[in-house]
Amino acid sequence: MSIVLASHQYGKAENRVVRVQRDSARHEIVDLNVTTTLRGDFADAYLTGDQSKVLPTDTQKNTVYAYAKQKGVASIEGYALELARHFVDDVVPVTGARVDVDAYPWTRAQVGGTGHDHTWVRSGSEVRTAAVTVSGQGERQVAHVLAGLKELTLLKSTGSQFKGFLEDEYTTLRETDDRVMATSLVATWRYGAAALEDGFDFDAAYAQIRQAVLEQFATLHSLALQQTLWHMGKAALERVPEAVEIRLLAPNKHHFDYDLERFGVQNHGEVFHADDRPYGLIQAVVANDAHPAAPEAWA
Amino acid sequence: MSIVLASHQYGKAENRVVRVQRDSARHEIVDLNVTTTLRGDFADAYLTGDQSKVLPTDTQKNTVYAYAKQKGVASIEGYALELARHFVDDVVPVTGARVDVDAYPWTRAQVGGTGHDHTWVRSGSEVRTAAVTVSGQGERQVAHVLAGLKELTLLKSTGSQFKGFLEDEYTTLRETDDRVMATSLVATWRYGAAALEDGFDFDAAYAQIRQAVLEQFATLHSLALQQTLWHMGKAALERVPEAVEIRLLAPNKHHFDYDLERFGVQNHGEVFHADDRPYGLIQAVVANDAHPAAPEAWA
Amino acid sequence: MSIVLASHQYGKAENRVVRVQRDSARHEIVDLNVTTTLRGDFADAYLTGDQSKVLPTDTQKNTVYAYAKQKGVASIEGYALELARHFVDDVVPVTGARVDVDAYPWTRAQVGGTGHDHTWVRSGSEVRTAAVTVSGQGERQVAHVLAGLKELTLLKSTGSQFKGFLEDEYTTLRETDDRVMATSLVATWRYGAAALEDGFDFDAAYAQIRQAVLEQFATLHSLALQQTLWHMGKAALERVPEAVEIRLLAPNKHHFDYDLERFGVQNHGEVFHADDRPYGLIQAVVANDAHPAAPEAWA
Amino acid sequence: MSIVLASHQYGKAENRVVRVQRDSARHEIVDLNVTTTLRGDFADAYLTGDQSKVLPTDTQKNTVYAYAKQKGVASIEGYALELARHFVDDVVPVTGARVDVDAYPWTRAQVGGTGHDHTWVRSGSEVRTAAVTVSGQGERQVAHVLAGLKELTLLKSTGSQFKGFLEDEYTTLRETDDRVMATSLVATWRYGAAALEDGFDFDAAYAQIRQAVLEQFATLHSLALQQTLWHMGKAALERVPEAVEIRLLAPNKHHFDYDLERFGVQNHGEVFHADDRPYGLIQAVVANDAHPAAPEAWA
Repeated sequence: MSIVLASHQYGKAENRVVRVQRDSARHEIVDLNVTTTLRGDFADAYLTGDQSKVLPTDTQKNTVYAYAKQKGVASIEGYALELARHFVDDVVPVTGARVDVDAYPWTRAQVGGTGHDHTWVRSGSEVRTAAVTVSGQGERQVAHVLAGLKELTLLKSTGSQFKGFLEDEYTTLRETDDRVMATSLVATWRYGAAALEDGFDFDAAYAQIRQAVLEQFATLHSLALQQTLWHMGKAALERVPEAVEIRLLAPNKHHFDYDLERFGVQNHGEVFHADDRPYGLIQAVVANDAHPAAPEAWA
Repeated sequence: MSIVLASHQYGKAENRVVRVQRDSARHEIVDLNVTTTLRGDFADAYLTGDQSKVLPTDTQKNTVYAYAKQKGVASIEGYALELARHFVDDVVPVTGARVDVDAYPWTRAQVGGTGHDHTWVRSGSEVRTAAVTVSGQGERQVAHVLAGLKELTLLKSTGSQFKGFLEDEYTTLRETDDRVMATSLVATWRYGAAALEDGFDFDAAYAQIRQAVLEQFATLHSLALQQTLWHMGKAALERVPEAVEIRLLAPNKHHFDYDLERFGVQNHGEVFHADDRPYGLIQAVVANDAHPAAPEAWA
Repeated sequence: MSIVLASHQYGKAENRVVRVQRDSARHEIVDLNVTTTLRGDFADAYLTGDQSKVLPTDTQKNTVYAYAKQKGVASIEGYALELARHFVDDVVPVTGARVDVDAYPWTRAQVGGTGHDHTWVRSGSEVRTAAVTVSGQGERQVAHVLAGLKELTLLKSTGSQFKGFLEDEYTTLRETDDRVMATSLVATWRYGAAALEDGFDFDAAYAQIRQAVLEQFATLHSLALQQTLWHMGKAALERVPEAVEIRLLAPNKHHFDYDLERFGVQNHGEVFHADDRPYGLIQAVVANDAHPAAPEAWA
Repeated sequence: MSIVLASHQYGKAENRVVRVQRDSARHEIVDLNVTTTLRGDFADAYLTGDQSKVLPTDTQKNTVYAYAKQKGVASIEGYALELARHFVDDVVPVTGARVDVDAYPWTRAQVGGTGHDHTWVRSGSEVRTAAVTVSGQGERQVAHVLAGLKELTLLKSTGSQFKGFLEDEYTTLRETDDRVMATSLVATWRYGAAALEDGFDFDAAYAQIRQAVLEQFATLHSLALQQTLWHMGKAALERVPEAVEIRLLAPNKHHFDYDLERFGVQNHGEVFHADDRPYGLIQAVVANDAHPAAPEAWA
């Protein structure tokens, strides 16, 4: 038998960058969590301990902060592209780079009915995400851009049922015509080549897909969370054609009717116990099949 | 020496109650985390294991859910008062009860420009809190109501300085005229007797104090987080005179200027590292001294 | 009405200090989370923004790290005492200081049957705690030392019952002769003056109380978690007479029998669902009444 | 363009099963977190909302608990195999199943110098893991078994250096001959076909690999975390030849020398700040190339 180093990568995780735009009295702010991952000619670092081709993760950190100023963060996708291309283009042993960005939402504090110039309130648990992968040199260089959101917590208090399911000897669940459906959605979509051309507005595309997903959750009478995911994915790709694939992961955050009849109290879908664990976990990948799959974008 | 049971209490923590108001097609929702704590004649349960005076925590849980329907949740303070009074009035061995409620914020999903009837999005990390303590029977019964908020995360990108501080041999901090100031505020205020009369609007009072606190954070040029807290507390008590004491606890979530000059890049308060730990922790109690203190309200 | 600053304090929270003793090839290590809190003449910092009496929290941080070398960490209680006394004795505006220390457990990696000289494995979720309060100057100076543990997670799979409890209209719990009892114990004890004399061995006292508590949990046939707490507290104070008061807080981490009879499978206390929330929460304070109470030690 | 459902799967996540073996007075206990995921003919649930082929996640939960009794948990790998094979063999629409198990460690409480019969203490943050994938029917059925550990937190206070690395214009890190190296290791290995034959001892193999990994961490003078990972992986596969591939993921939990010289205090690798974020993140896949790769085992 021969034991080999089959693959490897390394980087700096969770650089917490806050970038303030203060060209005028009306500031802008972005609050990011940035992770870099480098792939390339680093086998010697593992096999012999030779670090001569290894760009320290500390240097990657410095670059992450420096680029927030040097290149700015017009969009998180654009910023991640700049970083990933830098590592691949400018650091010789690097053949591929992935940059992940989480962006935390802030809204202007409302003072006297107006948004304040330089004071913000953290709004929502929701996180906007991007993941950019760049590999190869020169004309052969390929870039993939994923965008998405996570921890978008949604609940509908009616308009959801679950019935007609398969039963076996371990099935005790009762059918329901009306239940609370709640989830903490993770959605990640991949942009096709059209989005990589100059002038594509990643922020507008994000807002449109977020709204498409939200509207499906709200307006579709749900026969199952599976069905809701499919319609979310379909609506997203229809709304923004530059997005060619979307992956959805949705925990079914169970809200159980609390049995109050034991105390002579009626409960017609009014009082629920929000349970922690276990939870259903439903996944779907929806794709526009006019575009080729790109598994390497997700690695 | 004589070893004694000096004090004791028990209850059910973190009942996750979701209450849907569905009298019309336009639902309302409250999402709560409720903790009950009972005080009273329970020493035998400890000393001899005799449970005959112990109302099980499971029963407390059932009551929490049942009251969400039977009494409703017009305000979290009112709901907590109903629960606490029930335990003291109706369960013989109970001489005092505390009920803590955390309320998680949801806003209606925007669909077609309007808030949806029965679909919500979790909004903000911010949690509204209430803690009600009731003790004693009949005319001697005393109730205290605390209300508050936590995880209200605020940031201002200018308008904050820190200078002129005390120095000793371990001091290396440099003075600053302009820094990022950020915190995750915990504020808890105590209502005086006037708020316990019928018709007091706890929800309106909450909104007013929250706004007063926010405005001070935004508009005061801060000489230190200490000063900001004092003005927050003062503004809160002035805005809602029924609130007679407020306790503020504010981590100073440090945002450090990232040193980019090492790479020839200027950074005039534009790129920061948001550090996790350690953090400053500033506390203040602000009170209206026309009203007596009530340490038992905070136990 | 007159709004006043009723009280205040401030400090640096969660300094993550790792101290390596490397006088010989056989290293020793302590891994600490240290929080300092200062009380004193700081009202101007709040009321007028004057910082001239405020020792920056950054300086407190520096001191925490410096003292880990200058004074060492022979015991966490001794280290906390050194820090607290320094702030009170050496920083003029400070009239009182509290230092909290959490210590994380590591054990030597076993290599070839022996504990390794300089490699450790993090062992257990359990955290050892200390909280020292020093106030006043010179001969009037008073010091209080609390010690304790938290996240000591214990489970017994038999030897626990719960029956004979009070019932009301919301009671549905069934009595049980045999259940799983599990908790994540928080125990904090206060040492009397005898422990502050030279030569008292805080580490030995900690180990003895921890063992006393553990043995009671294991060997007492429990009629209720309340009874277990009383016996834990009593055994602790009897084992180490220098400890004069102990406060115990124990979540009842419910393990519910999973109903398998629906599938024709018997379950005699063999398969449980470990539930997250809600949980019972039981508290007790056990004291040696030969010693005066000291509520200020716990503030 | 045509939008299609490209792939999908669903299941029940985080079933918290505690299994007590009580055939004698000396109990045994396993504490598990079990997640099931089913793949198969479920497209209609997404596309049309037809649930007739969907086994509810509630049924999967019931099965997880029932099998803990019916099949037992001799090893977590064996238990996961039973569950996965059941879903594939007995539920018609299911063509593949994955079962993930986390096992939390408990050790017997020491009472009077002996391990107690039925009382345990949670020991370590470390979690043992298994992930079993079964797909296909009858003779074409294929099973893959992954095993591993996570949150194994290790630290060495000497015997680690980092120097000779690549430098660019953003590099400011200094070389070091002696540093603290710490990580919270995630290791997952794949067993080849030999381990699926009767009589293979998964528990013994786990213990051997864990020990091999630990010994490499302790005894190898580390030139970089990369090198340590390679030697860990190599040692693991050599120690247990039935393991044919191992994936290692190691955060470099930075411990920074605290600069005490500013206060005239020397610090020769004695006082460190344990930083939270960012952290290096090093990954390696080590494989025995006598065995074919099996990417589907990791999906």
